[in-house]
Amino acid sequence: MEPLTATFFDLVRNDMPEVETRMRSHPGSYHPSLDMAVDHLLASGGKRIRPTLVLLCGGMLGADQNRLVTLASAIELLHTATLVHDDLIDEASLRRGIPTLNSQWTPGATVLTGDYIFARAAHLAARTGSLSIMERFAETLMSIVNGEITQLFGTRSDDLRRDYYDRIYAKTASLFELAAEGGALLSDVDAAVAEDIKQFGYAIGVAFQIVDDVLDFVGDPAKVGKPVASDLRQGLITLPTVYYLEQDADNPSVQRLIRNERLDDGEMDQLVEAIRSSGAIKRAREEADSLITEAETILAGMPPSPERDALSDLAKYVVQRTI
Amino acid sequence: MEPLTATFFDLVRNDMPEVETRMRSHPGSYHPSLDMAVDHLLASGGKRIRPTLVLLCGGMLGADQNRLVTLASAIELLHTATLVHDDLIDEASLRRGIPTLNSQWTPGATVLTGDYIFARAAHLAARTGSLSIMERFAETLMSIVNGEITQLFGTRSDDLRRDYYDRIYAKTASLFELAAEGGALLSDVDAAVAEDIKQFGYAIGVAFQIVDDVLDFVGDPAKVGKPVASDLRQGLITLPTVYYLEQDADNPSVQRLIRNERLDDGEMDQLVEAIRSSGAIKRAREEADSLITEAETILAGMPPSPERDALSDLAKYVVQRTI
Repeated sequence: MEPLTATFFDLVRNDMPEVETRMRSHPGSYHPSLDMAVDHLLASGGKRIRPTLVLLCGGMLGADQNRLVTLASAIELLHTATLVHDDLIDEASLRRGIPTLNSQWTPGATVLTGDYIFARAAHLAARTGSLSIMERFAETLMSIVNGEITQLFGTRSDDLRRDYYDRIYAKTASLFELAAEGGALLSDVDAAVAEDIKQFGYAIGVAFQIVDDVLDFVGDPAKVGKPVASDLRQGLITLPTVYYLEQDADNPSVQRLIRNERLDDGEMDQLVEAIRSSGAIKRAREEADSLITEAETILAGMPPSPERDALSDLAKYVVQRTI
Repeated sequence: MEPLTATFFDLVRNDMPEVETRMRSHPGSYHPSLDMAVDHLLASGGKRIRPTLVLLCGGMLGADQNRLVTLASAIELLHTATLVHDDLIDEASLRRGIPTLNSQWTPGATVLTGDYIFARAAHLAARTGSLSIMERFAETLMSIVNGEITQLFGTRSDDLRRDYYDRIYAKTASLFELAAEGGALLSDVDAAVAEDIKQFGYAIGVAFQIVDDVLDFVGDPAKVGKPVASDLRQGLITLPTVYYLEQDADNPSVQRLIRNERLDDGEMDQLVEAIRSSGAIKRAREEADSLITEAETILAGMPPSPERDALSDLAKYVVQRTI
């Protein structure tokens, strides 16, 4: 993990230990393996960008700090629970360089541990004292799972770009949106402001995922922790590929990809190289940049504060990061 | 399924179609397979005893009917979601005579469908407008999952009876308790009344599970849908066995069972027959009866109403049923 030396992290540094503590707390006595599993999962770190978003958005709008910390913990735990089931389904053996739960436990124990973390996340969400947040929390989980089911069934429409946006909304932007909007829902602001902040979270989330998908093609595989173009090799079409398909539609490999047919390794390597050296990467980056510009415009309409400046830094970090 | 001709069902008959409708409703557009899965699971029926408990307890205490229907749907969906993951982990092929989801879908799709139903249940719970219910809802899910993990890991203490009570609380009584208490939490009653009703739900739930465990030994296998003593054959010690172990502690099969060793088929058949013809069945039934007496005593302290009479009928049904 790249250390977050960006200034946006400074403002939340004091709250983050309490976020970690609440993620590990629970309201009863449970099997020791469940606590061990939660500790293992949380010890593997992660950027904690979602809790940071909650704390900064809510802080900017004057929300109660204690409720924000609770919401930040709830959202990071929800994220953690979805990863547990995701890694099980994908049979992933490592996440953030640490063995996944499913690589060490039976599928049954992994399913149940994910369920348990969902319940802990829901319990924390209820502790924010906001029914709107509870409803949005449940809707977000439905969106995330719906995206995973759609991907698992390989369901595609005629519109690859639309499919891509639907998928990354479910996978990433929906939870960024909830993190930002949740901060507003705990503040005493108009519905219009909450809607703007939700849109801010959406823009940051989509840009974050687009950059992830760009780094899958051009990032340092050692840093990213995956081979180059691992998504495409698994049949997943991300934004750089969408752009490339548009500009080279007559290429037989492209045709077969669109028909969802399997390419052999040589053909795939050639296609990956073609995408990497095409203008598709640049166009995808520009799309992320324009979302960040939109996010900055929304911020400009918010009351000036150290949190607003930090969110602006966070927005820039999202597109500038290299892992 | 035995038709519920008991009078307690009459009072909720008009509300039940709306409970079914809300269980099938959702706040967005999702993959058609998810709707199909929910329909399939709900079409297999079930006694709907948990929603009945919500409607009658809340009705007796004057709760808003609309919120009760929402809570009833939330609780039955939570129950359904836990069964989806349960059947996957147990590799069960049938439930209520209908193929399980996991027998038709991949493990991944089954995990995600269970998650989706959890999210729908949580969304409905939030729609009750009660944060206390949301918190209790999340705690109940934690209890249920904790019980399953403990069972999966085969974790036992020195106290088989205590282990049994812990397990059936997690498996059954916790959700009955929530169903009853939830009805009270949506009513304008004192905390002491809510606590009494919670205890009523607990007593009914424990009695319900004890009767299930008795029927596993003495019920008609064709009606129960499982071979005689299927729990014991899977290494699960239920109340009849706990009583039998106490009265025949020197029996070598009993000794081996306590040490969690596997018995061969002949030895197991002999032990099952010994338990069936012992006084253990009667003692387990008496324990369920005494819980029902306790439940009736709690009811006697509640304001007289048709719902109270119906709950009294429901309590009697719990111990008299044959499936």
